[in-house]
Amino acid sequence: MSAPFSLKTLEDCLKNVPADDLKDLKTHIYGRSNDNELPVSTKAQKIAKDNTFVIKSYKFEAIKEDLRKPRVVRIGAIQTSLAAPTTEPIGVQRQKIFDKVAKIIEAAALENVNILCLQELWYLPYVFCTREKYPWCEFAENPESGAAVTFLSTFARKYNMVIVSPILERDEDQGDIVWNTAVVISHTGKIIGKHRKNHIPRVGDFNESTYYFEGNTGHPVFETKYGRLAINICYGRHHPQNWMMFGLNGAEIVFNPSAEIGGSLSDRMWFIEGRAAAVANSFFTITINRVGTEVFANEFTSADGKKAHNDMGPFYGSAYLATPEGMRTPGMPRDSDGLLISEVDLNECRQSRDLHTFRMCQRLPIYAEGFTRATKLDFKPQIIREI
Amino acid sequence: MSAPFSLKTLEDCLKNVPADDLKDLKTHIYGRSNDNELPVSTKAQKIAKDNTFVIKSYKFEAIKEDLRKPRVVRIGAIQTSLAAPTTEPIGVQRQKIFDKVAKIIEAAALENVNILCLQELWYLPYVFCTREKYPWCEFAENPESGAAVTFLSTFARKYNMVIVSPILERDEDQGDIVWNTAVVISHTGKIIGKHRKNHIPRVGDFNESTYYFEGNTGHPVFETKYGRLAINICYGRHHPQNWMMFGLNGAEIVFNPSAEIGGSLSDRMWFIEGRAAAVANSFFTITINRVGTEVFANEFTSADGKKAHNDMGPFYGSAYLATPEGMRTPGMPRDSDGLLISEVDLNECRQSRDLHTFRMCQRLPIYAEGFTRATKLDFKPQIIREI
Repeated sequence: MSAPFSLKTLEDCLKNVPADDLKDLKTHIYGRSNDNELPVSTKAQKIAKDNTFVIKSYKFEAIKEDLRKPRVVRIGAIQTSLAAPTTEPIGVQRQKIFDKVAKIIEAAALENVNILCLQELWYLPYVFCTREKYPWCEFAENPESGAAVTFLSTFARKYNMVIVSPILERDEDQGDIVWNTAVVISHTGKIIGKHRKNHIPRVGDFNESTYYFEGNTGHPVFETKYGRLAINICYGRHHPQNWMMFGLNGAEIVFNPSAEIGGSLSDRMWFIEGRAAAVANSFFTITINRVGTEVFANEFTSADGKKAHNDMGPFYGSAYLATPEGMRTPGMPRDSDGLLISEVDLNECRQSRDLHTFRMCQRLPIYAEGFTRATKLDFKPQIIREI
Repeated sequence: MSAPFSLKTLEDCLKNVPADDLKDLKTHIYGRSNDNELPVSTKAQKIAKDNTFVIKSYKFEAIKEDLRKPRVVRIGAIQTSLAAPTTEPIGVQRQKIFDKVAKIIEAAALENVNILCLQELWYLPYVFCTREKYPWCEFAENPESGAAVTFLSTFARKYNMVIVSPILERDEDQGDIVWNTAVVISHTGKIIGKHRKNHIPRVGDFNESTYYFEGNTGHPVFETKYGRLAINICYGRHHPQNWMMFGLNGAEIVFNPSAEIGGSLSDRMWFIEGRAAAVANSFFTITINRVGTEVFANEFTSADGKKAHNDMGPFYGSAYLATPEGMRTPGMPRDSDGLLISEVDLNECRQSRDLHTFRMCQRLPIYAEGFTRATKLDFKPQIIREI
């Protein structure tokens, strides 16, 4: 067993802060002094209580325009732990997560969520720490007709909801290879398209490069009934150029479905990177992580000097949304299933571009040229020395 | 008079947090539970007290390597208010800031600072809110022989210190045009070179585009006795690609000398952007802002619906350093002159690249290609619609 990393949520740490300091502290931490929390219906609260997950709902407002109507949407994010031991048959493990998630989607529908995203590889354990191919590769599925996508598609149609489903993809047309993929399901239940993870980690227990390659789908933005969205999967969060390319393609909402463990660099940077990306690109970002500790039958090592062990330690949840104007919701719990709902006005994206002109002042040509130069084998960095 | 924006520092807000919560709260806020504050010598403390500025000093450690010696350097950052009313003659205003800064540099030398950076346009008021050309353009100086650079060069030689001097540049070889420039002075007192601000704001009172253009010096990295440094001036902080290009050219330390007022987007993002850039590029960042309210004789408007007024409101100081591993120092005060000292081991830069492999996994070629595509007039964003 690895030593579990324990850290109170930032929100728990704020509970005993004197009222006199709290407003300023929240301004520092969330970019605004008031959480603007929205009430959650009794019906949804009951589902949450009966199924032991947390619902939180927050609101952000944009400037009222004359020529454009507000484009208010409710964005949902789901964080979950496993629903069955990893020693159960694959089909059972998957079905039990389906059952759990069905309840959360029901609550999301009651709260009028328009666009919903689940965490990375939402219906399976984060198995790559084991470096075992079987039975885990069985979780990989066809992105058009697989069990997870089919399951969510029913809800999308029923609730008129766009759903983003981060899956382990089986590429049946290309020698059965596996990808880390997000599938976008329309409010009609049809698949709009898919995106494959662009940046693959090779650090600690994140042995993903053993299973799949860097994605080959570019930086697609999906035009949906409720706005233009994109998915920057997990480790891509650390790459500003990845966020930026989704922005150049016109994204208004970028989800970051992730799997991250406590006490790591990612833990320190969790509330930093999504928010920085939102402001730099004038879009909304929603950063989502799983919760719970996932225990495997066979021990594995983590190349960190510790003895072999059977789990990676707890994933830290903490889903949040950040706005183009640099504000954010509080984080969701670190240790419990949850549904985060954020009501935003997508008009804020263009308003932020007008207000701060980051895009206009971006000087893309010099970076296109600089990046191109830096890819060459004979690249000479621009270094100036004392003569 | 514009309404002054008042906000306690985050550090003041933490003063009454119960000890039980403080460690976790600091982990969330600074990336580590302990500030690792270094003692400041009595002599330096006395200078600070006599001249009413604050000194703070913090330490960060890297992994000990076998083949490389630690490359421990002390990095200093100076934040100051004006030393004379803006109605005084230009020469008097400048001399009084020189006198104030001389004392702070003396303290920095006592504390063995190796590399020191001052705030943006450190020897003049932030005059661009006025949109007046005179008398303010008189502050522009030759980057090799101007008064500010000459003044600092003496200290650089005397104290064996690399000094970064952000000036208003007069380009005497090119029709006397003006630039926003940082000059790097070697520990020998010689000028190593200069960099001109890459991204120019056009927002609120930041009428800089009335005075100078976007810089034409690329993204130079200056090789100094104490490490490779670069300067991302002010508004360039909002542009991840700007930080990134300095990283591609090999920077280990990137200063962000700035001028920012309270209650703005920049205030919300101050502790976010520098830290995000440090981690994404595996270098140290030091973000520096001026303090105080600068009052001008002639009123001006800010295009924000407020009545004409004579000041922009208070600049909020808050200098801090962030590390490649995602930690940071507490912020300096929002309202007082100060010297921030950070002791770091530059070996951390390469160690972070090895640990997290952000650079290796960066996929620069796809971004070079994508950015190039996006610069074309016939650019078609990659948008996927339901068929």
